[in-house]
Amino acid sequence: MAYKHTVQQHIHFMQEALNLAKQGLYSTKQNPRVGCVIVKNHTIIGKGFHLRPGEDHAEVVAIRDASSNGHDISNATFYITLEPCHHIGRTPACINAVLNANPKEVIIGVIDPNLLTCGKSIAILKDRGIKTVVGVLEEEIKRLNKGFFHYMQTGLPYVTCKIAMSLDGKIAMTSGESKWITSESARQDSQNLRASSCAVMSGVGTIVADNPRLNVRLKDFPQQDQPMIVVLDSNLRTPVNSNIFHTGNKVILLTLESSKQNRNVAKLQQQGAEIMFLPSAENILNLNEVMQVLAKLNVTEILVEAGSTLNTALLDANLVNEIVFYIAPKILGNHTQAAFNLNHVMNLNQAREFEILSCHKIDKDLRITALVK
Amino acid sequence: MAYKHTVQQHIHFMQEALNLAKQGLYSTKQNPRVGCVIVKNHTIIGKGFHLRPGEDHAEVVAIRDASSNGHDISNATFYITLEPCHHIGRTPACINAVLNANPKEVIIGVIDPNLLTCGKSIAILKDRGIKTVVGVLEEEIKRLNKGFFHYMQTGLPYVTCKIAMSLDGKIAMTSGESKWITSESARQDSQNLRASSCAVMSGVGTIVADNPRLNVRLKDFPQQDQPMIVVLDSNLRTPVNSNIFHTGNKVILLTLESSKQNRNVAKLQQQGAEIMFLPSAENILNLNEVMQVLAKLNVTEILVEAGSTLNTALLDANLVNEIVFYIAPKILGNHTQAAFNLNHVMNLNQAREFEILSCHKIDKDLRITALVK
Repeated sequence: MAYKHTVQQHIHFMQEALNLAKQGLYSTKQNPRVGCVIVKNHTIIGKGFHLRPGEDHAEVVAIRDASSNGHDISNATFYITLEPCHHIGRTPACINAVLNANPKEVIIGVIDPNLLTCGKSIAILKDRGIKTVVGVLEEEIKRLNKGFFHYMQTGLPYVTCKIAMSLDGKIAMTSGESKWITSESARQDSQNLRASSCAVMSGVGTIVADNPRLNVRLKDFPQQDQPMIVVLDSNLRTPVNSNIFHTGNKVILLTLESSKQNRNVAKLQQQGAEIMFLPSAENILNLNEVMQVLAKLNVTEILVEAGSTLNTALLDANLVNEIVFYIAPKILGNHTQAAFNLNHVMNLNQAREFEILSCHKIDKDLRITALVK
Repeated sequence: MAYKHTVQQHIHFMQEALNLAKQGLYSTKQNPRVGCVIVKNHTIIGKGFHLRPGEDHAEVVAIRDASSNGHDISNATFYITLEPCHHIGRTPACINAVLNANPKEVIIGVIDPNLLTCGKSIAILKDRGIKTVVGVLEEEIKRLNKGFFHYMQTGLPYVTCKIAMSLDGKIAMTSGESKWITSESARQDSQNLRASSCAVMSGVGTIVADNPRLNVRLKDFPQQDQPMIVVLDSNLRTPVNSNIFHTGNKVILLTLESSKQNRNVAKLQQQGAEIMFLPSAENILNLNEVMQVLAKLNVTEILVEAGSTLNTALLDANLVNEIVFYIAPKILGNHTQAAFNLNHVMNLNQAREFEILSCHKIDKDLRITALVK
């Protein structure tokens, strides 16, 4: 029973730390969302979470919180969703701050997948004889930081495609008409997907056809947390007066080296666009190279809002990790554009398969979250 | 507070009556599912539900239940999901049985939409000075009896299409391969849709391509409750050795008068098929006539398990009331057959619209229930 009680206690306080971590959902960007609570006598005496890259980590914020409220933090139990960092980045290594606090126990949600830490801090804690538990609410913490974990483990960004479609899988009429298949509530909900992403990516076809803004339009959303906007534009066809240039967000156009002579280069740069010229053996951007380039820019989570050409190409290149479908209860029929144009699936066992994580109603529509298998 | 208490009590006991009514889900067929509880001193002293056409109605069963347990049922409160019948069919009018029980109160879920009763029994109760309340859990009771209410109000069967498809709205590969898009669990779940229907309908194209059995294969399901099987077969192409002839279910083939000379007529009849020849100005069955014919056979609920031709024709003819989608988390792409081939929708405001009643996971798949608007 004592053990059972301890496990329940660990889950309880780790859940508190996880709730704190979630407060960084829209702002930590390429950094992980991390929360920390400091517990003494079954009571939380300090709370902290990581807010933004370059700002204090969760452990440091929690220690400061406890101290500023007059608590003696020595001999306390730390609950930290992610292993404290062992490496020094823009902030000092958190493991030192934790050791200085002279803890009795340190309960860690998940090992840091960053190879600069990855178990090293845990080893130090154990060496010092501090009771250490690792692995509480692991799945939930990894899901909250799906981009960070994927990036650390593969070197690539985690790619989520957002698709607003009808029950028969159509994203637009043949004419291009697509405003609006889903309801206002569903479209508003999808703003949260943008907000938690490092980058929102689209194809030049969508920029030309729909002229979207692609920025986060949640109330009071800080401009500094806006995702960058990335447009795949092999032949630099992005119109100079596109709405993406009027949001204040960083805009990156990825194009081919052959576009260097394009007469719009200077005009697009004047609009604030950063143009990156990628080499390619073919006449079209190589999507693997695109992901490598974005990874070098520390982009860990990408939201793709595109048409069937880019959606299909990314799926075919095995670069999609997750799809969020907003499904309107409509059938659009034959004069339409499909969400995907897979051409190589000739029988059922070649179908692209997903795992459905969740499904629920948003106003009249459905939101289905599916992981690519 | 007293009133509030009474309302809560009414809802509580009507829910009990509704739960009993649901026990007739698979067996009342063209009759409504009706439940009844008799309450005295806040205690249920008798319970009953209607099981099968020709068998006793819920009120009579509940009265017998109470009496056989030695209860004095006079001055009791009756909770009946549907207004007691005023008309005499295969069983006597229930309103007389209720009056003979000398009730203090009669609480009725919904007025009987059958014009032979429709308020008449309620008027009699009120004339006799018996306290009568009408309208408790109306929506739930109507939903349980969607076929009966629709049939009584429109003269037509309630039509549900069952569609097993991929996330991109595909029901088969171009080759016809469709076994199996959805999981075993989803297919098993759909057996319940068959079980609650008076008839399972398909098109001859599906019979030829898939040779389904279309019967209910739930454990211990009584043969007498099996739905009839209806095949729309304009030119009488149904193979004589089709599996539908080996289930023991009643099989009706609806064809055109022009098929009377078809050399398979006698062979199909030998297999047990009842062949009905419908007149038609055109070379194809008129779906409105089909529904009229089935209505005359007392078919109130039809489950359609067909391909896109019949699905689309029914939807275009505004004869579909509900669609149950079993959606597999797969994308099948372009070499496929769509669930619907609507050809007249040219822009978004012409889309066929639905109202989603429910959505939940069944094993790996989703089940979405949608009403046609």
